[in-house]
Amino acid sequence: MTTTRTGYKWVGTRPVRHDGLDKVTGRARFGADYATAGMLHGVVLRSPHVHARILSIDLTEAAAMPGVKAIITGADLPDIPDETGTGSEGGINFRDLSRNILARDKVLYEGHPVAAVAAVTLRAAQRAAEAIEVDYEILPAVLSLEEAMEDDAPVLHDDLFTLGLDSPPDRPSNISRRRVIARGDLDAGWEEADVVVEREYTTKAVHQGYIEPHAVVAETGEDGRSTLWCSSQGHFAMRTYTTKVLGWEPGDMKVIPAEIGGGFGGKTTIYLEPLAALLSRRAGRAVKMVMTRSEVFRATGPTSGSVMRIKMGARRDGKLVAATAWMAYEAGAFPGSPIGPGVMTVLACYDIPNVLIEGYDVVLNKPKVAAYRAPGAPMAAFAAESVVDELAEELGIDPIELRLRNAVTEGVRAVYGPKYRKIGFVETLEEARDHPHYSAPLGPWQGRGVASGYWFNFGGETTATVSINEDGTAVVMSGCPDIGGTRAALAQMAAEELGIDVHRIEPVVADTHSIGYNDMTGGSRVAFAVGIAVVDASRQLIEDMCSRAALIWDVPREEVEWVDGRAQSVTGASAPLTLEELASGAGATGGPLSATVTVNPRGAGAGFSTQICDVEVDPDTGLVTVLRYTVVQDAGRAIHPDYVEGQMQGGAVQGIGWALNEEYIFDRNGVMENPGFLDYRMPVASDLPMIDTVIVEVPNPDHPYGVRGVGETGIIPPMAAVANAVYAATGKRMQDLPMSPVRVLEALSGD
Amino acid sequence: MTTTRTGYKWVGTRPVRHDGLDKVTGRARFGADYATAGMLHGVVLRSPHVHARILSIDLTEAAAMPGVKAIITGADLPDIPDETGTGSEGGINFRDLSRNILARDKVLYEGHPVAAVAAVTLRAAQRAAEAIEVDYEILPAVLSLEEAMEDDAPVLHDDLFTLGLDSPPDRPSNISRRRVIARGDLDAGWEEADVVVEREYTTKAVHQGYIEPHAVVAETGEDGRSTLWCSSQGHFAMRTYTTKVLGWEPGDMKVIPAEIGGGFGGKTTIYLEPLAALLSRRAGRAVKMVMTRSEVFRATGPTSGSVMRIKMGARRDGKLVAATAWMAYEAGAFPGSPIGPGVMTVLACYDIPNVLIEGYDVVLNKPKVAAYRAPGAPMAAFAAESVVDELAEELGIDPIELRLRNAVTEGVRAVYGPKYRKIGFVETLEEARDHPHYSAPLGPWQGRGVASGYWFNFGGETTATVSINEDGTAVVMSGCPDIGGTRAALAQMAAEELGIDVHRIEPVVADTHSIGYNDMTGGSRVAFAVGIAVVDASRQLIEDMCSRAALIWDVPREEVEWVDGRAQSVTGASAPLTLEELASGAGATGGPLSATVTVNPRGAGAGFSTQICDVEVDPDTGLVTVLRYTVVQDAGRAIHPDYVEGQMQGGAVQGIGWALNEEYIFDRNGVMENPGFLDYRMPVASDLPMIDTVIVEVPNPDHPYGVRGVGETGIIPPMAAVANAVYAATGKRMQDLPMSPVRVLEALSGD
Repeated sequence: MTTTRTGYKWVGTRPVRHDGLDKVTGRARFGADYATAGMLHGVVLRSPHVHARILSIDLTEAAAMPGVKAIITGADLPDIPDETGTGSEGGINFRDLSRNILARDKVLYEGHPVAAVAAVTLRAAQRAAEAIEVDYEILPAVLSLEEAMEDDAPVLHDDLFTLGLDSPPDRPSNISRRRVIARGDLDAGWEEADVVVEREYTTKAVHQGYIEPHAVVAETGEDGRSTLWCSSQGHFAMRTYTTKVLGWEPGDMKVIPAEIGGGFGGKTTIYLEPLAALLSRRAGRAVKMVMTRSEVFRATGPTSGSVMRIKMGARRDGKLVAATAWMAYEAGAFPGSPIGPGVMTVLACYDIPNVLIEGYDVVLNKPKVAAYRAPGAPMAAFAAESVVDELAEELGIDPIELRLRNAVTEGVRAVYGPKYRKIGFVETLEEARDHPHYSAPLGPWQGRGVASGYWFNFGGETTATVSINEDGTAVVMSGCPDIGGTRAALAQMAAEELGIDVHRIEPVVADTHSIGYNDMTGGSRVAFAVGIAVVDASRQLIEDMCSRAALIWDVPREEVEWVDGRAQSVTGASAPLTLEELASGAGATGGPLSATVTVNPRGAGAGFSTQICDVEVDPDTGLVTVLRYTVVQDAGRAIHPDYVEGQMQGGAVQGIGWALNEEYIFDRNGVMENPGFLDYRMPVASDLPMIDTVIVEVPNPDHPYGVRGVGETGIIPPMAAVANAVYAATGKRMQDLPMSPVRVLEALSGD
Repeated sequence: MTTTRTGYKWVGTRPVRHDGLDKVTGRARFGADYATAGMLHGVVLRSPHVHARILSIDLTEAAAMPGVKAIITGADLPDIPDETGTGSEGGINFRDLSRNILARDKVLYEGHPVAAVAAVTLRAAQRAAEAIEVDYEILPAVLSLEEAMEDDAPVLHDDLFTLGLDSPPDRPSNISRRRVIARGDLDAGWEEADVVVEREYTTKAVHQGYIEPHAVVAETGEDGRSTLWCSSQGHFAMRTYTTKVLGWEPGDMKVIPAEIGGGFGGKTTIYLEPLAALLSRRAGRAVKMVMTRSEVFRATGPTSGSVMRIKMGARRDGKLVAATAWMAYEAGAFPGSPIGPGVMTVLACYDIPNVLIEGYDVVLNKPKVAAYRAPGAPMAAFAAESVVDELAEELGIDPIELRLRNAVTEGVRAVYGPKYRKIGFVETLEEARDHPHYSAPLGPWQGRGVASGYWFNFGGETTATVSINEDGTAVVMSGCPDIGGTRAALAQMAAEELGIDVHRIEPVVADTHSIGYNDMTGGSRVAFAVGIAVVDASRQLIEDMCSRAALIWDVPREEVEWVDGRAQSVTGASAPLTLEELASGAGATGGPLSATVTVNPRGAGAGFSTQICDVEVDPDTGLVTVLRYTVVQDAGRAIHPDYVEGQMQGGAVQGIGWALNEEYIFDRNGVMENPGFLDYRMPVASDLPMIDTVIVEVPNPDHPYGVRGVGETGIIPPMAAVANAVYAATGKRMQDLPMSPVRVLEALSGD
């Protein structure tokens, strides 16, 4: 744990979070904690097949069962055209989103929703769902990237033609899009290279693994106006998506955010919400729907499995001169893997003059992927950072030193286009190199690996309101769910500005009818973008309060300044007026103190992380134990270091799980065999050491306190860091994730 | 029904109210409709005595009863000093408020709370309350103004010394304050008068009679932060008052407004709220408390009973030249009757040069009064307008003509001080005079009366936010409960400004953590003050949208104007951009569209009403039947005429009930004998004709659409209008309310 040093009173400190006690005492209300009188329970009937045509659905028996109030199938949702014009990118494809929520003519994965039932009890709804008769014609399925990309593969979508090819395709394909990034002269690059390494890597689909399953209560009135209570990363987006899929008006729906029990990107889309809203409208009663864990695994987005081939060349002095990357990402049943950020980030840490990156978005008969923490970047870094490690060894250069010789810096043009602004990659490398961890002794079967990672970060549409109560306490309102402690961070920034105690500020996540539009919590945008709006609103209030002090003192505005939570007379002619005094007397000086600011800021400072991992490998079992782990990351400025460290630690732990244990395991029919936390093994506290953190602070010039997003970057380096450590311990390069005991044993026995 | 004519598209029209369907289908949630899991039920133990010393309270048996989770008495509330320094005015006296919520050493009226219990069921709480043993020493009581004001009367408060006397009092009294208004030279006035009338009038305590009883659910967390769900006229005030009484911080409490099933001033104070919050804190569970109707009558504020002596003199030509008024108002158990507005309004309709008004605020052993629609004004008007009617008769001048000759107009100085700004009193008199009702024929035992009334109206502290959704719909947020249709009116003003359909606007009453501070809904301030803020916020958004259009078109801001819901190029160089287009593209032009405005506006235009009443009196039973009733009232501008008419009709009907039927009836021990709607007889639809309305529109120059408050004025003239009509029908002047059959029979038999 590093204590950051700032000249601030609140920014950089570690106050108890405002929502902490509610959460540790069980008073906080999550998605499934809502209930209303007379509420119905809804369930989803899901496909048992991975690929099949729906020939007929017979609801007769189910509809007649006692307590059943409404049943809907895909026929009850409106047809929505694909407005994206791109098949897989450039906005949400609502046609696909709708078909993922309720299948139409075909089911595309095991667990694909076919119908939804609302009944007076959960059991009655389940029995009715079981009584729905669906007649399927089973179709051949594609269950791997290799199969899916073959020329004669069965295609999931007859109307899917690959975008981004050099010549237009003449027939449908499972490849929805090809993405290419190129620069320089590759032939010249390879020519210049003294050392070249080329390897293929694979990763499996892994799930975000949020503890809280998807849950919603919907109530739709006779006038079509509806209310949703749900847990998500963005209630405004839930409203937009849900109403779009239903053909309703966003303005007619109010979405009230529940607390969120983990999202990690996976709660940026909708599954149950339109079903509950439509069932409620049909039944005339509120409807509650909660997924089981099995449903979460089988039918909500994991991130992509991938196949990647990376080739990199370096001069003897360590300068990287050429690189190619060929990457294919699983999209699941509908187009839309994170191949975009995958190709953009795979080489983004390094300044390489000659580059060709090719990426493919591929559909196959698995659940549609969803965003997962730094979508697309961690698997890419696994591949690229493994190759960099091999190059370092071949060149005989310390791996951190090799990275330092090629690290991107301010003004360098990123491989995907823009020039980097002020960034702290070099600083994370230097901190890692100089950290005691990097030179600590190791024993037999132990090894150390390092790896780095890059994430863009994001700004986004934002509205924030700051209001001062009559007692001088304040409310900071945002419309972004608090996933990682952002309520505390926003309150700290307001406290810093206003000059009041952070615990006299109540940070609130307001519903869609209590604050203006906000993009989702994601891309690590909240402390950055909402922070900017909160600081701006606080400064507007200070300006307002200074004007009121000037009014009270009957002096020009210029003779009043705000110092340490009070208005002071520049001339000393009047005794200072505290914020409390100005607040309690606000009625007499023009009315309440409240300010709203909207922004869509650019300049969400790019984030870099360098991580050091020590492992010990058990040669008898293949078990890899993480002995020590250090995350060095540039936070720009850590507003609340506890939660910055928490993000760094959480990202690293999820990455370690991805590296060592986690994978979707399917049987030969494509049915997931491990849809539960006992069999889908995520690391728990007893599996890992405390994750050490070093917060580097290279302030982002585009934020008033220098904030960069910190949520994503931490998950990017771990798979490569662990793999490089396993190599150091065993001499074996692990190119396929997860590095589970069986795979490690296989590698060791290959000696 | 009068249709108002305006040049507007939405202002002055009658759209279906936004909250209408929820209310008629039962979906709207009122105070008692809230519930949470594991919630306890709370009840209040109330005094059976009107005046007694509490010698001891024994909780032993009650606390040991099954299911009992918490019991509190007055000892559990903090001692709060009287910070008003005035005994009865100049702000809320929280010492008294606290003692009204839970008695300390003495109980002061039958129904005064002594203890409160929370238990797992309502029945368990009731049983435990019954098991609390309270030892009382019964004290002599004062039950009438006459008794209370006698020199040797038993005093309720040993520390209450009359304020406003010429010399300081030497001993405590039940008279808390004397208020005096004087101008001119009375002796000269009486000298000039050709005709003088002097009469005494009495009125009884009457209750606001809201259908919804007081109800609250409180949940207080381990960290002391609490949430209240309650029905009130102002959730910010509920927060301020409740936390003040408990010694808590306002900022630690969130109050969520329920729909309100009637308030009429009676829901501007607290009764159950601190009890539920404190019981919840003690029990560690949510606590729900709901009053019975009997509790509402016995222990929440009616308005004052009164005794008034009015003397007025006029010249032969009808000019009023002198007047005196002596007025005593019941405050109930603690100081604070509406004697202030009583003395200010009693003669406010007329320009009289020589005046002396004396008012007394008097405590006695009855429930503490609370605000009731135009507090203090209706009883005063009953007295003054009866005298005016007598003068008209004596002078042989038509009563409307006499009022016209003395009516206050713009620039005239009100008897209580300031000059009237633009007002419409003369216009209401002329409309009444010219109305067919005023010259319609009457039969035997039928009579017609007229009377006028005045109310100040109010501005108050206000915050409003207007946000535009990405689909071009909008949300109008205020923090003032919607009692009389203000959601619709605010939406109409925003629709008028923005140029969009009123049903694409969702008007929201936001909780204390979702909008800045707002004073209560009362004094008819919402359409005026919140309207100003909403219009201002809408105009800020239009300015913002024009700037964005200028950005898109790459032209100076001056080349863009807002016309009919779209940004137009002044030069015609670009096609117009609709609000929908600007909203959907807001992210690219600077972020969401949202604006917050705070105001504390002056200039809430004064309201005047003149009313015509026809009655028929049954000489055998004394029953007075209202045959026809017309309310003529200046609304400044009727934003939604339905709800303006509704206010005028509702005020008139409540005034008619006050005139004819309603009264608190006490037995000799001061116990209320009619604490239920069967025995406390309020008029119902079948008792009355349709109330006719004429909306006069003399726009208020201090509001963008000319709005004046319309909620209060309508209740002021009815008692005098009915009494004057009864006189016209019977030749008997009724000087004591209510004019119930028994009193009318008495008057007739006095022939």
